[in-house]
Amino acid sequence: MSEIIPGKMYGVGTGPGDPELLTLKAVKALNNADVLAFFAKRGARGNGRTIVEAHVRADILELPLVYPVTVEEDKDSESYKRAIDGFFDQSAAEIAVHLQAGRNVAVLSEGDPLFYGSYMHLHLRLAPHFPAEVIPGVTAMSGCWSLAGMPLVQGDDILSVLPGTLPEEALTARLAGTDGAVIMKVGRNLPKIRRALAATGKLDGAIYVERGTMPTGHAMPLSERDETAPAPYFSLVLVPGWKGRPQGVLA
Amino acid sequence: MSEIIPGKMYGVGTGPGDPELLTLKAVKALNNADVLAFFAKRGARGNGRTIVEAHVRADILELPLVYPVTVEEDKDSESYKRAIDGFFDQSAAEIAVHLQAGRNVAVLSEGDPLFYGSYMHLHLRLAPHFPAEVIPGVTAMSGCWSLAGMPLVQGDDILSVLPGTLPEEALTARLAGTDGAVIMKVGRNLPKIRRALAATGKLDGAIYVERGTMPTGHAMPLSERDETAPAPYFSLVLVPGWKGRPQGVLA
Repeated sequence: MSEIIPGKMYGVGTGPGDPELLTLKAVKALNNADVLAFFAKRGARGNGRTIVEAHVRADILELPLVYPVTVEEDKDSESYKRAIDGFFDQSAAEIAVHLQAGRNVAVLSEGDPLFYGSYMHLHLRLAPHFPAEVIPGVTAMSGCWSLAGMPLVQGDDILSVLPGTLPEEALTARLAGTDGAVIMKVGRNLPKIRRALAATGKLDGAIYVERGTMPTGHAMPLSERDETAPAPYFSLVLVPGWKGRPQGVLA
Repeated sequence: MSEIIPGKMYGVGTGPGDPELLTLKAVKALNNADVLAFFAKRGARGNGRTIVEAHVRADILELPLVYPVTVEEDKDSESYKRAIDGFFDQSAAEIAVHLQAGRNVAVLSEGDPLFYGSYMHLHLRLAPHFPAEVIPGVTAMSGCWSLAGMPLVQGDDILSVLPGTLPEEALTARLAGTDGAVIMKVGRNLPKIRRALAATGKLDGAIYVERGTMPTGHAMPLSERDETAPAPYFSLVLVPGWKGRPQGVLA
């Protein structure tokens, strides 16, 4: 009786959007993978899958993992938690079948796999049982401040990554207690974010970035943006913290 | 009379250490560069230069930028500020000569160029006058938590990046007010960092990482590390913030 050597799981960071921001290690993992797993919304292919398009071999087996819920749903509801937990359990089980059969599985993760990514839920379920390697990637926030040509932190500065979903009071307190900040999950939270920035004297330096390193990406001072224009959920606000920074350096 | 078209400056993120964590875009910039500039300590080649070794063309002009001072010097002293400002002024002037002559200059930056990197000082001086592009890279902290297989933040978690140089009271307050944290500039600050973690109930989950993605890199629970062993300046402490995280997942 022959024993099958289990395959290896790779958590592959795809970077923030520009396909050239893939690492050499990510490309190598894609070349060595038998199965390509990726998260996607229903009816869409997923950004991660789009980013790696040029490196997908014709003979690779594709395994889309389709979210049963949307990102803006109430995350504290019991029904959301049940649905998303079940989804990660089932996704892990599907991947485990391939690993047990000796196939290497690359799981795509936009940005960096362990930085606010869905991949971590699979890693926690599978890494105790199978060989697993996390290939770090360029985060969306790095993509955004590079596009803006905006250094956020230097020397002994504190950087805080804050979700725009925080209550206004908490957001204001966190902004007051940091040097630089990145505010994520902007969307409909933008008016609240503006108020918290104004209350801490940080509105003037703040930069609004949409679709970081996508071809249509752009950055602008938040104070110059039309207050009534809707913002996409995945836009970012960058707050420079660098005390010695000269003014007016937005590239 | 013919006019020379100025060259372009690329701020090239080299990632945290593993040469395979270079991006495709970084490799392309190195291929297109006429001049390769990199920061180095006196008598050393610099980590950035070592990381890109395989991609340095034989005919490229190398421009080492040698720090006049060391990183652990008192940064608030007037003599330090004068020395480091003069150094960045002179480095920018040397690069400007090449750009004016129409040569493309790649400036290496370990990790991500605009995340606590020296490159930003050149960018601020030169980007207003010459074409400049920042190529983001994988940060040291991403390299470290990937090595440890440790998801730090998820969902609506707050992540704080804190310098270990903060006074103990400030460090304790910041740790109390965050979910996940990355503590940088560890070195001789480690005993103080331990006390601040213990005071906020976060010592048990904390992971100590040395030389992130270098071949000799390793990660271990901070609470299991010999308290008297010296720590290098560039080691990191990772504090997981993810509330729903199962225990014991260190890969």
